[in-house]
Amino acid sequence: MGVTAKKPYQLVSKENLKVYSTVKVGQAIFGGEEVQIIAGPCAVESREQILSSAAAVAIAGGKLLRGGAFKPRSSPYSFQGLAEKGLELLNEASKRYSLAVVTEIIDEYSLAAAKDAVDMVQIGARNMQNFNLLKLVGKSGKPVILKRGLSSTIEEWLLAAEYIMAEGNCQIVLCERGIRTFEPATRNTLDLSAVPIVKELTHLPVIVDPSHATGIRNLINPMSKAAIASGADGLLIEIHPNPEKALCDGAQSLNLSQYEQLIKELRPVANAVEKRLGKPGMTKLGGN
Amino acid sequence: MGVTAKKPYQLVSKENLKVYSTVKVGQAIFGGEEVQIIAGPCAVESREQILSSAAAVAIAGGKLLRGGAFKPRSSPYSFQGLAEKGLELLNEASKRYSLAVVTEIIDEYSLAAAKDAVDMVQIGARNMQNFNLLKLVGKSGKPVILKRGLSSTIEEWLLAAEYIMAEGNCQIVLCERGIRTFEPATRNTLDLSAVPIVKELTHLPVIVDPSHATGIRNLINPMSKAAIASGADGLLIEIHPNPEKALCDGAQSLNLSQYEQLIKELRPVANAVEKRLGKPGMTKLGGN
Amino acid sequence: MGVTAKKPYQLVSKENLKVYSTVKVGQAIFGGEEVQIIAGPCAVESREQILSSAAAVAIAGGKLLRGGAFKPRSSPYSFQGLAEKGLELLNEASKRYSLAVVTEIIDEYSLAAAKDAVDMVQIGARNMQNFNLLKLVGKSGKPVILKRGLSSTIEEWLLAAEYIMAEGNCQIVLCERGIRTFEPATRNTLDLSAVPIVKELTHLPVIVDPSHATGIRNLINPMSKAAIASGADGLLIEIHPNPEKALCDGAQSLNLSQYEQLIKELRPVANAVEKRLGKPGMTKLGGN
Amino acid sequence: MGVTAKKPYQLVSKENLKVYSTVKVGQAIFGGEEVQIIAGPCAVESREQILSSAAAVAIAGGKLLRGGAFKPRSSPYSFQGLAEKGLELLNEASKRYSLAVVTEIIDEYSLAAAKDAVDMVQIGARNMQNFNLLKLVGKSGKPVILKRGLSSTIEEWLLAAEYIMAEGNCQIVLCERGIRTFEPATRNTLDLSAVPIVKELTHLPVIVDPSHATGIRNLINPMSKAAIASGADGLLIEIHPNPEKALCDGAQSLNLSQYEQLIKELRPVANAVEKRLGKPGMTKLGGN
Repeated sequence: MGVTAKKPYQLVSKENLKVYSTVKVGQAIFGGEEVQIIAGPCAVESREQILSSAAAVAIAGGKLLRGGAFKPRSSPYSFQGLAEKGLELLNEASKRYSLAVVTEIIDEYSLAAAKDAVDMVQIGARNMQNFNLLKLVGKSGKPVILKRGLSSTIEEWLLAAEYIMAEGNCQIVLCERGIRTFEPATRNTLDLSAVPIVKELTHLPVIVDPSHATGIRNLINPMSKAAIASGADGLLIEIHPNPEKALCDGAQSLNLSQYEQLIKELRPVANAVEKRLGKPGMTKLGGN
Repeated sequence: MGVTAKKPYQLVSKENLKVYSTVKVGQAIFGGEEVQIIAGPCAVESREQILSSAAAVAIAGGKLLRGGAFKPRSSPYSFQGLAEKGLELLNEASKRYSLAVVTEIIDEYSLAAAKDAVDMVQIGARNMQNFNLLKLVGKSGKPVILKRGLSSTIEEWLLAAEYIMAEGNCQIVLCERGIRTFEPATRNTLDLSAVPIVKELTHLPVIVDPSHATGIRNLINPMSKAAIASGADGLLIEIHPNPEKALCDGAQSLNLSQYEQLIKELRPVANAVEKRLGKPGMTKLGGN
Repeated sequence: MGVTAKKPYQLVSKENLKVYSTVKVGQAIFGGEEVQIIAGPCAVESREQILSSAAAVAIAGGKLLRGGAFKPRSSPYSFQGLAEKGLELLNEASKRYSLAVVTEIIDEYSLAAAKDAVDMVQIGARNMQNFNLLKLVGKSGKPVILKRGLSSTIEEWLLAAEYIMAEGNCQIVLCERGIRTFEPATRNTLDLSAVPIVKELTHLPVIVDPSHATGIRNLINPMSKAAIASGADGLLIEIHPNPEKALCDGAQSLNLSQYEQLIKELRPVANAVEKRLGKPGMTKLGGN
Repeated sequence: MGVTAKKPYQLVSKENLKVYSTVKVGQAIFGGEEVQIIAGPCAVESREQILSSAAAVAIAGGKLLRGGAFKPRSSPYSFQGLAEKGLELLNEASKRYSLAVVTEIIDEYSLAAAKDAVDMVQIGARNMQNFNLLKLVGKSGKPVILKRGLSSTIEEWLLAAEYIMAEGNCQIVLCERGIRTFEPATRNTLDLSAVPIVKELTHLPVIVDPSHATGIRNLINPMSKAAIASGADGLLIEIHPNPEKALCDGAQSLNLSQYEQLIKELRPVANAVEKRLGKPGMTKLGGN
């Protein structure tokens, strides 16, 4: 766009759109004053598991439930998700608790399956440069969370978003989830500097996933606070009614009462940077 | 394999198959005494370009021509390849010079298109953990070059190969192509230690791509020698009749006379580690 | 400590001391409820420069002034600091504004020179494994800021602290200042996860240097907030009365009014995590 | 050098000296046709250990013995070397087998102790940016091996050499010893591309240390071959008469017969790149 463009990306650039974009999913608006906390289990495992997770999300004032139905796993022998059955369960949880739902898609098939079943799709770190998938999501017009690849530069990440937007889909939320470094103490190194950089370079909302970034339960709380303080528009957090029995990522999942405590502690931090969290949903749920 | 397996991969493990596998593609055998030099342009650009590249490969004693028809590019605005037209040109070059051909596939569509048109497919670094593509290539039974992801551990790389082999396809050649590090002097850091490690952990052949690893023309020669000395079963090298005008990766491509000189210098190195290069094809081509 | 110790460090370990240590320097206490903001220029350049910086620190409620007298520089041709003259100017600023002062020491000579001139010394990232220097600082008994090496694991960092403490010096404040990664957008990658990890493994206070970590002025504000939200006991910030004319690190230095604004914005963040900043010093200075 | 210099280093640059420097130490010449193999134990442990190592070096045609007397160790509780006693033993071994000796120095004290006792000093990776030590070695005029820091860019490494040369000492041999990356399979990642890059940018000789780079005994052989094939002027190899009982780095040390076999296999590789190894010293030793 234009002869003076020096950046390799254009549509996602702040030079293209001087105001910050907002992305609306269900009742959640990314990019506004309210910090969106997306929570849920790594993988949908059972009706009971997803319903109790959804209840916790709703009670805490969350507007989005996450849950994996199609899981990309490093090993062919690991649990690969419940697929369509998982989508059905997400759908039931969504209706019961008036939550929007987001799930990861990994190929053309899972995108087609998820398209009408969920409100928002997620492209995972490993697929950030799966250009065919980026184009398909671009054409689908679905709101999408685009995770940063685990060794992707910020520029490559924005170019991946450009692929989606070049197909006409502007409903993009970027998600920092840790990069690969030499440090063995955490699964990845959460690069929070990416938040203000993305805010400077693009008009897109950006959220942070401290669960995948650190891989350590005890770090979720301080890193969630840090993410909000750095200016993030939201968080993506793994919770599980019984983390010890989780089929994946148990070690980094909060149980439901840890999650409730976290949300309580995040409110003053959001306020300190002139943002706010969604109101707790106790009353409404109590009315059901 | 079996209950005592401690490694997360099984089929690709040396514990599963005590002898080294060989992979036969056209007249080339990977994993034997002969070091296979695959060469060709980053992208097929024109009939003249691919035919003159193919001639250089054949003259130098090579048995495999590479050429990209479907290009995965970081930017949606970069040249994306000639697609089917590229495959046709590869096919013509293949027949004229009796070379097997290898091309990168990036999704279900390009795999279907390439399946009957080429002898071997390649899964690029960015798709190393595109698990759906790994499974499709596994089912296709095509010989495949599996490049290491640019921030993949060796274990993750072998697990990606396991995905292919778990679908019944044993025709896998691993390819080290550099990993992402802090060093800015080269595009990536060529990790040659991966060669003997892979040889210790698996029965699969492993080759090296010094062109993508370094991104610098002058380094191709010394790094090719080093790769063979480290025990690599082959090389993957970018050449172009006119690198200055290449549509991609010109800065790292050898011109045809540099390539000829390289092959000449590689012969004694291969011999020094008790391997050999294919015999120069002058006579035969001269007879045409 | 003792036979069951599995960690390679002992004295610095939380298993050795169950309560958090505090380190007192002048009127500042690291490791308590008050977040300590250390600020000042990269290098002491002139009387005017250091005095106006010191005034800004005092007005903002800071208790510690930093300033480099002995500069370790990558190139032998870069400005290497004013040495003893720099220490004298720091001393003058210290007295005039009732601030404690901290300066980097780089060898036996600079340590001897600084010992009586400053309140606290700093071991920089490049010297984190200069074991001789660690021992000398250990013997000196001076309060010390120990920066994390730019490619040091957290374990190596704690072992470096162990070297100091093994000589009998417990006055150690750890400082995270960014690690080296592949990402080119920032000078280093600020690893804020290190803060809660250090808090879990050791009893020592830990502060964060967002200036060196990011190398970008605009990132100091959000990353300072994030650091405090993550649980850091303090910050180390580069300020300069005239960053455009700074002899080193101008691009990452705040000017004095940006610094004042930063402190104002940090107060509610500290409060949100149940900490506080030092009270602004206007009245007292006004009385001089 | 001069106003047109764009590189931050000058004296070490090839633009400063168009021909390659050679560094003579005892009977060894670095930077010529002969590849210099420096070998010996990580640390001098006993008279018997260093003498039998020295014998193996001499028999294999080596001209330089290495052995650590002052050891920089990550933990204050690890073996720190025999200091002066170690230097004495090195000296005895040197005389008996007519070998030059090289040892690591870590501070002013060890440099003073080593200066008259050894032929060449080594600055280790952790001290590559210990600028005071660089200057002291520069002033000493001693031939020096300057190891690359484990997260140093090539440019920073050359600037460290510039510090030494700026003090008038041109007897510098650079040594690539692996860089820190995300890959856990090896201790560090050997960056062999650094060899031809250094050859292009500077006039200084460059050698490779596959022992520290990989940390794995089985990789020494293939990586030594690769290093020579890439153009290295020499190797630095850890050997030990009884690696299982070594006080440090046993897992990466070759025993003496493995070392003998290595040298045998390296000769044809050196010849393949138009270099050669020193002649085996059997006859001469037999005459003693």
